[in-house]
Amino acid sequence: MRIINSIEDLRVIARRRIPRALFDYIDRGSYDEYTMARNASDLAAIQLRQRVMVDVSQLSTGTTVLGEHWKMPVGIAPTGLTGLFHRDGEIHGARAAQTAGVPFTLSTMSICSIEDVRAAVDGPFWFQLYLMRDRSFNEALIARAREARCSALMLTLDLPLQALRRRDAKNGLSVPPRLTAANAWEILLRPRWLTGVLLGKRRTFGNLASFFPKDGIATLSEWVGGQFDASITWKDVAWVRERWPGKLILKGILDAEDARLAVGTGVDAIVVSNHGGRQLDGATSTIAALPRVVGAVAGRCEVLLDGGVTSGQDVLKALALGAGACLIGKAFLYALAARGGPGVTLALDLIRRELEVSMALCGVHEVRDIGRQVLVNPR
Amino acid sequence: MRIINSIEDLRVIARRRIPRALFDYIDRGSYDEYTMARNASDLAAIQLRQRVMVDVSQLSTGTTVLGEHWKMPVGIAPTGLTGLFHRDGEIHGARAAQTAGVPFTLSTMSICSIEDVRAAVDGPFWFQLYLMRDRSFNEALIARAREARCSALMLTLDLPLQALRRRDAKNGLSVPPRLTAANAWEILLRPRWLTGVLLGKRRTFGNLASFFPKDGIATLSEWVGGQFDASITWKDVAWVRERWPGKLILKGILDAEDARLAVGTGVDAIVVSNHGGRQLDGATSTIAALPRVVGAVAGRCEVLLDGGVTSGQDVLKALALGAGACLIGKAFLYALAARGGPGVTLALDLIRRELEVSMALCGVHEVRDIGRQVLVNPR
Amino acid sequence: MRIINSIEDLRVIARRRIPRALFDYIDRGSYDEYTMARNASDLAAIQLRQRVMVDVSQLSTGTTVLGEHWKMPVGIAPTGLTGLFHRDGEIHGARAAQTAGVPFTLSTMSICSIEDVRAAVDGPFWFQLYLMRDRSFNEALIARAREARCSALMLTLDLPLQALRRRDAKNGLSVPPRLTAANAWEILLRPRWLTGVLLGKRRTFGNLASFFPKDGIATLSEWVGGQFDASITWKDVAWVRERWPGKLILKGILDAEDARLAVGTGVDAIVVSNHGGRQLDGATSTIAALPRVVGAVAGRCEVLLDGGVTSGQDVLKALALGAGACLIGKAFLYALAARGGPGVTLALDLIRRELEVSMALCGVHEVRDIGRQVLVNPR
Amino acid sequence: MRIINSIEDLRVIARRRIPRALFDYIDRGSYDEYTMARNASDLAAIQLRQRVMVDVSQLSTGTTVLGEHWKMPVGIAPTGLTGLFHRDGEIHGARAAQTAGVPFTLSTMSICSIEDVRAAVDGPFWFQLYLMRDRSFNEALIARAREARCSALMLTLDLPLQALRRRDAKNGLSVPPRLTAANAWEILLRPRWLTGVLLGKRRTFGNLASFFPKDGIATLSEWVGGQFDASITWKDVAWVRERWPGKLILKGILDAEDARLAVGTGVDAIVVSNHGGRQLDGATSTIAALPRVVGAVAGRCEVLLDGGVTSGQDVLKALALGAGACLIGKAFLYALAARGGPGVTLALDLIRRELEVSMALCGVHEVRDIGRQVLVNPR
Repeated sequence: MRIINSIEDLRVIARRRIPRALFDYIDRGSYDEYTMARNASDLAAIQLRQRVMVDVSQLSTGTTVLGEHWKMPVGIAPTGLTGLFHRDGEIHGARAAQTAGVPFTLSTMSICSIEDVRAAVDGPFWFQLYLMRDRSFNEALIARAREARCSALMLTLDLPLQALRRRDAKNGLSVPPRLTAANAWEILLRPRWLTGVLLGKRRTFGNLASFFPKDGIATLSEWVGGQFDASITWKDVAWVRERWPGKLILKGILDAEDARLAVGTGVDAIVVSNHGGRQLDGATSTIAALPRVVGAVAGRCEVLLDGGVTSGQDVLKALALGAGACLIGKAFLYALAARGGPGVTLALDLIRRELEVSMALCGVHEVRDIGRQVLVNPR
Repeated sequence: MRIINSIEDLRVIARRRIPRALFDYIDRGSYDEYTMARNASDLAAIQLRQRVMVDVSQLSTGTTVLGEHWKMPVGIAPTGLTGLFHRDGEIHGARAAQTAGVPFTLSTMSICSIEDVRAAVDGPFWFQLYLMRDRSFNEALIARAREARCSALMLTLDLPLQALRRRDAKNGLSVPPRLTAANAWEILLRPRWLTGVLLGKRRTFGNLASFFPKDGIATLSEWVGGQFDASITWKDVAWVRERWPGKLILKGILDAEDARLAVGTGVDAIVVSNHGGRQLDGATSTIAALPRVVGAVAGRCEVLLDGGVTSGQDVLKALALGAGACLIGKAFLYALAARGGPGVTLALDLIRRELEVSMALCGVHEVRDIGRQVLVNPR
Repeated sequence: MRIINSIEDLRVIARRRIPRALFDYIDRGSYDEYTMARNASDLAAIQLRQRVMVDVSQLSTGTTVLGEHWKMPVGIAPTGLTGLFHRDGEIHGARAAQTAGVPFTLSTMSICSIEDVRAAVDGPFWFQLYLMRDRSFNEALIARAREARCSALMLTLDLPLQALRRRDAKNGLSVPPRLTAANAWEILLRPRWLTGVLLGKRRTFGNLASFFPKDGIATLSEWVGGQFDASITWKDVAWVRERWPGKLILKGILDAEDARLAVGTGVDAIVVSNHGGRQLDGATSTIAALPRVVGAVAGRCEVLLDGGVTSGQDVLKALALGAGACLIGKAFLYALAARGGPGVTLALDLIRRELEVSMALCGVHEVRDIGRQVLVNPR
Repeated sequence: MRIINSIEDLRVIARRRIPRALFDYIDRGSYDEYTMARNASDLAAIQLRQRVMVDVSQLSTGTTVLGEHWKMPVGIAPTGLTGLFHRDGEIHGARAAQTAGVPFTLSTMSICSIEDVRAAVDGPFWFQLYLMRDRSFNEALIARAREARCSALMLTLDLPLQALRRRDAKNGLSVPPRLTAANAWEILLRPRWLTGVLLGKRRTFGNLASFFPKDGIATLSEWVGGQFDASITWKDVAWVRERWPGKLILKGILDAEDARLAVGTGVDAIVVSNHGGRQLDGATSTIAALPRVVGAVAGRCEVLLDGGVTSGQDVLKALALGAGACLIGKAFLYALAARGGPGVTLALDLIRRELEVSMALCGVHEVRDIGRQVLVNPR
């Protein structure tokens, strides 16, 4: 049996397991993918400060984020279409997260509905929200999330319109996904996906099926353009706040000034994110933006980060520069597509173990001790 | 049908459509092509500042350049031999530009004549001029451009002699182009080009046919060396001014001191250009030169830029650093060679849409709002 | 006969000579191997200052380290599993080192025991120690090293736990190494290794056979996790000091603060090391860490360096930045695996000759004259 | 017929024309070839300042170096074994140089003797000298050079011993060159070289045949080690001065302090050189060393440069940073090996024409006007 010991291993398997159009949706970014590449290369360039002769026999990766205890400072980011990569993908993700003691975020754009996930797991999970032109739909979603006892609501800010993901457009990714001559043979070559996902007990966009094009099929981009609200501003955060009494997280902030504005809304946490390099191509990497954002926030809310995080070292670097935790999106989906729930468990375990080793070799025992002192020449 | 959603897609198609010697004329630069490479890499390195929660439901890419309203801050640069890449290429370019609401610049070195283009489009277009040893010819050209109601004259400064384009020389590009044993099979393999361009209703260097070698065939470089005036200086701008009452644009400025001298001639606009990396190899990229030129001009005339612009992000970056608009040369020719007039329309539309998305994600609604505030760490 | 004149040549031969799992153990690093790559690239980036017209007819690479005279400032680093790469590998290494007039360091993780090596060579050699949970075992090892008249004890600090070497895990490297279906065909394709090492007069982990898993086979990583002491701190140096009257060397320091703490223990020397890029991935290169460590030590003990050293130029650069000598690990093992003892002799000779040439062309005659003056723009 | 319009074209042809061992001797550097690569990449990174509207109809590349008028600021560097790359290679080189109006430097290590070259050309040429252990041989060589009316003597300083050129050693390059089983088939595959060089009217190391190993064959490196004087110091310059009344040039200086010492000997010129990246690997590029050397010399002697110069742009950059002229070694040999004397003429013409174009586009008419003003952000 082949040994899997990196996210890259899971990525390679995922590429063989699911139709190319779905793999590309996970794997690729917008336009020329400069920002996606920068997310990874900027993380790689950071150098860690090795320490020795520190008793590391007792190590803990546990931490507290938004009042919840996590077994490690890593959560699962909201990802669209998740249930297409593996049958009941959102459920498997939520269960694996629960097992690993970390949060799972359910996307508005999920296949399994809020209620599906609620029925499948005991513990808390988070729900991600896009603001639509039809606010009554958002009100309903928020109510459903409350009903499902979601412990936090994560409002995504950086998709007022959708940037072009060239590969998705070429692959004809549509809403709802459809079978075409171009992708039929791809699907036939992947019988496990065919029988497991396509022909299995189908759930389809449980959260927003009613939003689908009445008159047939649209490209993903057209559909977003038609449904999402491009006019949202900071006052809309107040609108959400009024309807959501729990923890509120704002996702998609890269700029110090935006971070200050976010803090002003009384939000509980922000996620430094460039949508995984899938929105503004040319945007800075999240790890480069992090210190400026952390400085602007000045401790007035919690700061999370996603974008290019695929290892425990990456997590350590982000925490050293001020993040409270990281979210994984691509890494989660590669794992799910490659091996289902056990794949997600494995991915989380690999990252946790790498984080432990890296903490030990930097001479820190606790997540709260991770700071700039673990970096060489921090900028 | 294959989906085209980048200039690179058009480039790949163009390479299959037209003879290699013509493709290389578009695609390659002078000497070791350092400058051509730098045009692209320096644009790619610039980082944009993502903003969120700005109402971007109303966005406009419209702008005013030289008193003309453009639907976006992008025009078509003058390009030589255009009619060889597609039958009536200049006419298709001018029509596509008019449809897109942007200016078209007809090159002196065009296949279709000024009169051909004038007859084919209603609106204004620009005319580009090289100063020749035989000034009476220039006088005649200027008179024809006035007659054709060209709305601006663009004088190219950076080709007092022609730098070596190694690939063109190897391909035996000649004036006039000729059929040789070396390129015959290339042409036979491209029947669409053969019938569409070579055997179609031929127009040949409508502007300067009388300038062709009387005694047969010359290389492009020899012909330029024999006809172009290497002795031109700033006083020659005055000479042109006297004969051209309309808007005057100077193209080919990379240096702050030259920009000051250009402003001193009372010109209406300058184009920061290194001839697409086809003249001085080793020259700085246009985007790196832009801030110095803009600083030297200090608002006394308009500043345009060409060189490596292939996306809406590139346009946004150039505008952020002070350009009023960009011109596209290579991108225009790839599109024309790949798909004719509809290709050009598509290319302009791709760039416009990318610009809209990038503006939205940087939180700006209007072209006039684009400034250094959209850049991370502007230099 | 093929001419070998670089460590890379030996590496290429080694890859063909020994089973892939063993080659990879030498060749690869931990996690994404950023640190391993940095060791090499940071050395390569340093520029030497060429001098001319200095009489270099008399040159000496001789030096004194820890009171021992070495014929060049290069020793053999401790390397695990050495006897698996060539029968009696440790003995061949020790003999080649003695011939070349440089020190050999025997690893705790060796195949030949301390006594084996003692019986095979006349001169002094060094012994490397890991601190185990079972300190009585360490006491016994120290006693054996004293008995064998080892001239120095090198305590490794940077392996309180083992970082993941992905390739080793994939290759199923176990303790003790075992034959599996996966590696059987590899072994059959290398009959010389099969008969020379596997079927030869076997010695197996002479120093720590009693430590092997009672209940069968463990991965290398599990075994380390079970046996090595993750709780060691600076006070444990004192524990070793009490039991070892001779020279004491601490290996695995990358940080200036750790260097100061090491000096405080009264140690004789430290080795700036990142375990060849096999422990903390993301750690700085050793050559980049060296100046900070040398500054912190301020002459209070000797400073050695390993990590990426494969040429005489590398040695010169390390000495210029303050190292007293370098240790070679990978270079030694490539040579041993490729050609046995004569290979090691060759590797040492190549490095020594390269050092001589580089010293001559930098205008220095003696190792003690090597300083920052041989560098261009030292940082 | 294939069009040749770059030195790289000549290099590609040379690789097919002559045995690999000889091609590699031209093409490769010492050790890891870092310095050779840096020579090229540091030149490529320099950016030129384009100027426009300067009358460039009258341009001259002529210059005066050491009192001799050259048609361009480029000469031919001394190169060993030249006559092996083409029959009578030194004679062809000297004639091509004379035709082009530039100097030719004959190497001590040439195949054609001083007298051979003297008999073949009318004008002046230069002679390069290595100081040998046997000074009476040097005295004889100097006398022969005087007799042959060489107009300058160039003393090479940077080869007190020979650095390892790994490829040469692998290729078994020996003194004198010999036929081996390894290179026989190479030679048979190149009948033109076989009949033209090997079986033609042979001249063999005309300058130093008496120095060849009495007892058979040595490697090039051994031979150098046995014959060259590693003890030379600045006082030896005085020894040469006493015997050579003409212009004296010192070649192989990279360091400002050495440049000052050179000036102190009253020398007429120095050549900033790292032996084409074939001696101290790790040394700085010549173009990076040039400004420091020029500053140290402060006009007290002339400064030439070699190392990586393959184009007119390279020449312009070197002159802008203070060199009076450049010497070409590799470019000369590629041309000679590819096409004999006409190849050398072509190479010189390509470089001259590129220099003209680059000067024109930087707005300079005369070599003496080339200065830092043609560079963007000179360092």
